[in-house]
Amino acid sequence: MKRIVFALVGVGALAGAIATTAPVSGQSDGEAAPIYGIKLPRGYRDWRLISVKQLTGAGGLKQLRAQLSNDIAITAFREGKLPFPDGAIIAALHWNEVSSDADNKVLANGFPGAGLESSFAGTAMNVQFMVKDSKKYAASGGWGYADFTNGKPGNEALHEKCFPCHQPAKDHDYVFTHYAPTP
Amino acid sequence: MKRIVFALVGVGALAGAIATTAPVSGQSDGEAAPIYGIKLPRGYRDWRLISVKQLTGAGGLKQLRAQLSNDIAITAFREGKLPFPDGAIIAALHWNEVSSDADNKVLANGFPGAGLESSFAGTAMNVQFMVKDSKKYAASGGWGYADFTNGKPGNEALHEKCFPCHQPAKDHDYVFTHYAPTP
Repeated sequence: MKRIVFALVGVGALAGAIATTAPVSGQSDGEAAPIYGIKLPRGYRDWRLISVKQLTGAGGLKQLRAQLSNDIAITAFREGKLPFPDGAIIAALHWNEVSSDADNKVLANGFPGAGLESSFAGTAMNVQFMVKDSKKYAASGGWGYADFTNGKPGNEALHEKCFPCHQPAKDHDYVFTHYAPTP
Repeated sequence: MKRIVFALVGVGALAGAIATTAPVSGQSDGEAAPIYGIKLPRGYRDWRLISVKQLTGAGGLKQLRAQLSNDIAITAFREGKLPFPDGAIIAALHWNEVSSDADNKVLANGFPGAGLESSFAGTAMNVQFMVKDSKKYAASGGWGYADFTNGKPGNEALHEKCFPCHQPAKDHDYVFTHYAPTP
């Protein structure tokens, strides 16, 4: 039952993606996601950390998530610059959240009585991108959207949901994630 | 009651830290943490992402955490190289975990029936470091430890707990965190 969101965002990878636009620069080889034509950006695993999230849902769904961004986007986040400049890319990396009895035993021994339990990023789920190009993606608020599971893009029906779902964040240039303060 | 771990790791900042060794290179100005003499490393907010964690505890404690590392450490993580080479530094950034009714409403609208709820990194709590120097820190498995809250190091009693608490991870060079697979 932990696969609900995986199913929501991932099964379409087999449904035949249609790239309607050419890939933007800085993207790796591979299949382009439908509608926006985005391929996996190069080197996103090394990008800067914006923030961290947890997603829970019905059936015991638990995910840990990290939002990373390229240099253009992270600068805009830090300067509070809106709208984001062209070239900004935001990546959302999603993992199944798992726990370890061994880790929790260490916490119980180290901090007795505090009831501490830890969980961490387990298996990889999917990765999503927002790519800013105000001309190319003018019809969707200046952003292109893409979702990949195991390097394969999700289907067109999935990608049709991206922009409408981001509408409530219009005042923040359609970006829900805020920059986490530095501890 | 959400301040339990903050208290555990943070109140000692007022207790008078004693730096017994000189700071290692690449560290910013400021007060050194006790025992290991580590100052806040420069630029750690820009380091590479290792993994993401959640910590829960008694009294409603909920934290989201990110583990970042410098280039030396991330290379070792990716290559599975143990022990970590000298110069490796691991940072653990801790935030209060909070949620937003507005975000959850968006999820409910976008994915009806999935019961999705999201939470994210709120206020900054503290940041902890492991600094590898096999000679300097030979007595503690080659690692120096440091904890900072608002840029101020925790006290000596806190730092005395670090190495014993990491003993169970001896087979992984005292590091609990594992590299999260790339989605």
